[in-house]
Amino acid sequence: MKVLIIHAHPEPQSFSSALKTVAVKTFIEDGHEVQVSDLYAMGFNPVASAADFGERANPDYCVYALEQRHGIKTATISADIQQELAKLLQCDLLVLNFPLFWFSTPAILKGWIDRVLASGAVYGGTRFYDRGGLRGKRALVSVTLGGQQHMFGQDAIHGPFESMLRHLLQGTLAYTGLEVLPPFVGWHVPYIAHEARVEILEKWRDRIRSLEGETPLSFPSLNDFDERLYPLKNKVQQETE
Amino acid sequence: MKVLIIHAHPEPQSFSSALKTVAVKTFIEDGHEVQVSDLYAMGFNPVASAADFGERANPDYCVYALEQRHGIKTATISADIQQELAKLLQCDLLVLNFPLFWFSTPAILKGWIDRVLASGAVYGGTRFYDRGGLRGKRALVSVTLGGQQHMFGQDAIHGPFESMLRHLLQGTLAYTGLEVLPPFVGWHVPYIAHEARVEILEKWRDRIRSLEGETPLSFPSLNDFDERLYPLKNKVQQETE
Repeated sequence: MKVLIIHAHPEPQSFSSALKTVAVKTFIEDGHEVQVSDLYAMGFNPVASAADFGERANPDYCVYALEQRHGIKTATISADIQQELAKLLQCDLLVLNFPLFWFSTPAILKGWIDRVLASGAVYGGTRFYDRGGLRGKRALVSVTLGGQQHMFGQDAIHGPFESMLRHLLQGTLAYTGLEVLPPFVGWHVPYIAHEARVEILEKWRDRIRSLEGETPLSFPSLNDFDERLYPLKNKVQQETE
Repeated sequence: MKVLIIHAHPEPQSFSSALKTVAVKTFIEDGHEVQVSDLYAMGFNPVASAADFGERANPDYCVYALEQRHGIKTATISADIQQELAKLLQCDLLVLNFPLFWFSTPAILKGWIDRVLASGAVYGGTRFYDRGGLRGKRALVSVTLGGQQHMFGQDAIHGPFESMLRHLLQGTLAYTGLEVLPPFVGWHVPYIAHEARVEILEKWRDRIRSLEGETPLSFPSLNDFDERLYPLKNKVQQETE
């Protein structure tokens, strides 16, 4: 299995970095190939802009997704995007490893998503969800946060954790066709003792070793919608009314 | 009313920019004060890092939120953050105006959130949700997207729009204590005719004029949770069991 880890934490000694290191080590021990994009270390540019395109489909007006399609087709999209995209397209498993900032990714990782998950390469037209360009590959989100587990859930203060991350799990990863595994969460990290951190690292190692047999989360299928993306059951209802 | 508009679109001639322009004009016509942070035009730095702190609480290990608290207390947090934070703290209404990128904000705006919504200034400890530092102010999200309205909703392909934006509406804006108004959405923008765009601009102008009487969205209240953030009703159940 080829694994691509996208890591984004401003502190190189962070616990999130320790999760990244354990993941690399465990995957390699188990015979997998691993690449890491450490976005802070790379000084990755997160700002999607017209400067991403060496040649423009429309030099006077930048619709970012349309320029992405042109840039992919003509291989004139910027070199850093091409490099990341090549890593992504050859991987079998994508791991996003980051600290939760405002119930989402740090901006530097959001920028990797905005720029690298390019229209024309990983989605476009009706190529999304289970027809997305990355189908056949899997994705795993591994996050650390200050909050505790009891703060998430149906009656909990923040609601279900996966609802808070829906824009990422469904709207981003599943949207591109990736099979999304349940997130791995390091709870309450800044406030716990060394032993509790070691325990999380051990759980992470075990989790990595059992990924192969896991069932991905469930997301919409285009098979349940018509070509204009109306639900098929409503269509049947409308036709019989 | 003092209004702060945070605008983030890579194309200065975009429809999103037109929404921003209409908002500025309408608020001013109605006697309000308006400030605009046009993040792309400003070349705003979205990357939260140790470089944001002129003086460090812990020079050897950067926990970003803890350094924010120290940077706020000592007024040594970087100048661009201080400037944006000053605009935010003096406003009555915050408007985030942007194109939806992956069911969320463009990275440059995510970076504004990561860096400017600083711990110690807008939240911290138990100062969040209805006890957040920005309580008494309101927020409005104004987005453009390629998708159509029928693609969102309970049985629709992407599910309810506000669920997809929960990390932003609840997890970010409401978390800081802001009263969050229902989002304004420009549907299907890249694919619609001039007349349909003019219609959206008119709806936007009308919306802005009726903001004062609007009811904000509903979010959790800390009054329903104990000091460890367990739901109070469970506590009562536990005590009587």
